[in-house]
Amino acid sequence: MAQQSDVEKLGSLVRPHRGMINIMPLQTGGLLTEAARRAMVEFGDGYSVCDFCQGRLSDIVNPPVKQFVQELLPEFLGADAATLTYGARDGVFMVLHSLAKPGDTVVVDGNRHYSTAVAAERAGVQLVEVPASVSPEYRIDVELFAQPLRERRPALVILTYPDGRFGNLPDAARLGEIAAEAGVPYLVNGAYAVGRMPVKMSALKADFLVGSGHKSMASAGPSGVLGMKAKWREVVLRPSVLHKNKEMECLGCTIRGVTLATLMASFPEVRERVKHWDEQVAKAQWFSSAMEGLGFALLGEKPHRHDLMRFECTQLFEISQRVRERGYYLYKAFEERGIWGIKPGQTKALELSTFAATREQLEKVIAAFSDILKQYR
Amino acid sequence: MAQQSDVEKLGSLVRPHRGMINIMPLQTGGLLTEAARRAMVEFGDGYSVCDFCQGRLSDIVNPPVKQFVQELLPEFLGADAATLTYGARDGVFMVLHSLAKPGDTVVVDGNRHYSTAVAAERAGVQLVEVPASVSPEYRIDVELFAQPLRERRPALVILTYPDGRFGNLPDAARLGEIAAEAGVPYLVNGAYAVGRMPVKMSALKADFLVGSGHKSMASAGPSGVLGMKAKWREVVLRPSVLHKNKEMECLGCTIRGVTLATLMASFPEVRERVKHWDEQVAKAQWFSSAMEGLGFALLGEKPHRHDLMRFECTQLFEISQRVRERGYYLYKAFEERGIWGIKPGQTKALELSTFAATREQLEKVIAAFSDILKQYR
Repeated sequence: MAQQSDVEKLGSLVRPHRGMINIMPLQTGGLLTEAARRAMVEFGDGYSVCDFCQGRLSDIVNPPVKQFVQELLPEFLGADAATLTYGARDGVFMVLHSLAKPGDTVVVDGNRHYSTAVAAERAGVQLVEVPASVSPEYRIDVELFAQPLRERRPALVILTYPDGRFGNLPDAARLGEIAAEAGVPYLVNGAYAVGRMPVKMSALKADFLVGSGHKSMASAGPSGVLGMKAKWREVVLRPSVLHKNKEMECLGCTIRGVTLATLMASFPEVRERVKHWDEQVAKAQWFSSAMEGLGFALLGEKPHRHDLMRFECTQLFEISQRVRERGYYLYKAFEERGIWGIKPGQTKALELSTFAATREQLEKVIAAFSDILKQYR
Repeated sequence: MAQQSDVEKLGSLVRPHRGMINIMPLQTGGLLTEAARRAMVEFGDGYSVCDFCQGRLSDIVNPPVKQFVQELLPEFLGADAATLTYGARDGVFMVLHSLAKPGDTVVVDGNRHYSTAVAAERAGVQLVEVPASVSPEYRIDVELFAQPLRERRPALVILTYPDGRFGNLPDAARLGEIAAEAGVPYLVNGAYAVGRMPVKMSALKADFLVGSGHKSMASAGPSGVLGMKAKWREVVLRPSVLHKNKEMECLGCTIRGVTLATLMASFPEVRERVKHWDEQVAKAQWFSSAMEGLGFALLGEKPHRHDLMRFECTQLFEISQRVRERGYYLYKAFEERGIWGIKPGQTKALELSTFAATREQLEKVIAAFSDILKQYR
């Protein structure tokens, strides 16, 4: 039963590890820029972006939501039109709910995020999965989509690009050709791509591209973006019959507040940082080589082309079997060293992201793994 | 076409009127507390509340989301269970999408928010409206629901309590009896009630109660809450078949970030402030009397029982017909006086809220109206 003191402590919650070296896959692309921190303070209050709203979020001129949504985002995504969402999963659901009827089918890759399956279920749509290859690569061969697209006549095909577990990047442009040939609308789930790496819907021959503000666009959450081809605007952004200036699938407005302010404020830096993606890939490859040098096995594609990676860590698991703290020793050892992102209890397989950390910081991460192996030898 | 300078200016957006006397209905209940401002800075980064997530948002122990969602919110709402949403409209859609099939009917009041209609449309559900009485009261007589509930066998009945235009408070408890008698599930849309005034789902005999963080709980947006009776937990919070620890209607998680942090941080003060609702009502009545003294006609119920109010301002409209700035003169006159909330261009009917302003500040608002009338006489 909650006490008065439980209520009071809600007023002073802190994150003690804020400012630590962050390698948590979920968090490295969503760390705010300084500009976003300023915008957050400025636009913190409830309906802050609605000061001058005339009825449509995407038409607000001050702050320049209209220009952001109608010009900058489509250009950034390589799309004809864009809209704001609560996140990648909400973008996926909006498209599914607009294009598919209950009982329809959606074809997805075997590395898809759990929320893709949940969105399909919520829309009453049946999931057909094209499996990934076996361990250690878990590769998605997009040629395998041709048959189910031809035979199942799905309402949509979704590719996770990259997936959140291995950071694999399937041949999204080739799937665009296969989908076009089969006449199936094609959605790219770029929750870990948009805002990290250059990605244009047009180059992937996709109909839709979803991105996540809190995952990869240096934005507070919940926030996301959805780009689409012109022909889908009237389907996905169809207006309400009763309220003609409200988009039905958005329930009128989506991110009406601080999370839009941070998404916009970080956009100049985000647009710039994707141009330096080659440096991120080089850093990730250097890091994974060092990890393999310590005896950890990189899962997923090689050479690796993304900052998300998963390692098999048998040695660390073996240690957990004989220490007092069991699996938690690893989390504690990293926390003591000022490194954030090892999930409490996990040792056998670790998912990490090198996106936010510098090489100097990652050297500390490598040194931490090395020290721990020596300490428990 | 957007220029480089357009992109760069996104990094330094400001709200010049922050800190002015705020009487904008959409904003007065969503102004952050100091505790929320601190939480915002602390939890600004993307997936900030997910540091220690084990797979379910509502089970996170640090920060104490679990206690907040599973104990404090249900108690506050007078509900058996609660969940987090993106806002009131999203709560309405979640319930409609869970309870109704396309082609079903939902009965609503004539003062309902536009998003109720849009949510129904999105769920493929037909809207039946019980009209409000004629001007000036626009009163909702809940006895008029009995017939459509009996004859139409709707999947749900929704009452807006209060509505956002007039601030009318229909007899929600009586409608609870009528709905129970007809065997129709009953949702109270408390976007302008929860967090402002005492409201318990149980006392209203409702099945569902939705609230809005950014509208009335001193929280950043998007954020909201949904309370429900125990029997609806398995319907609305049904788990995904493929991912059993994920709630399908929430697509797994909803407000996974800063907006949840502000909702929680403001909760101690919000819980306290609803106990002082009588002072808010007295202030609203004092204000509306003063406005009537100036010749403006209060629309909606009398005596008025909410801080939201709408005035018919024929004199102000007449002025707009003969001044150079047309309807914008009023907005400018208030802005010059440090008062925020008059919509640019509006004069004929004004919607205001007295919730956030002190009596001293509201005296300045009254003085402003009085000055303007004298100036243009």
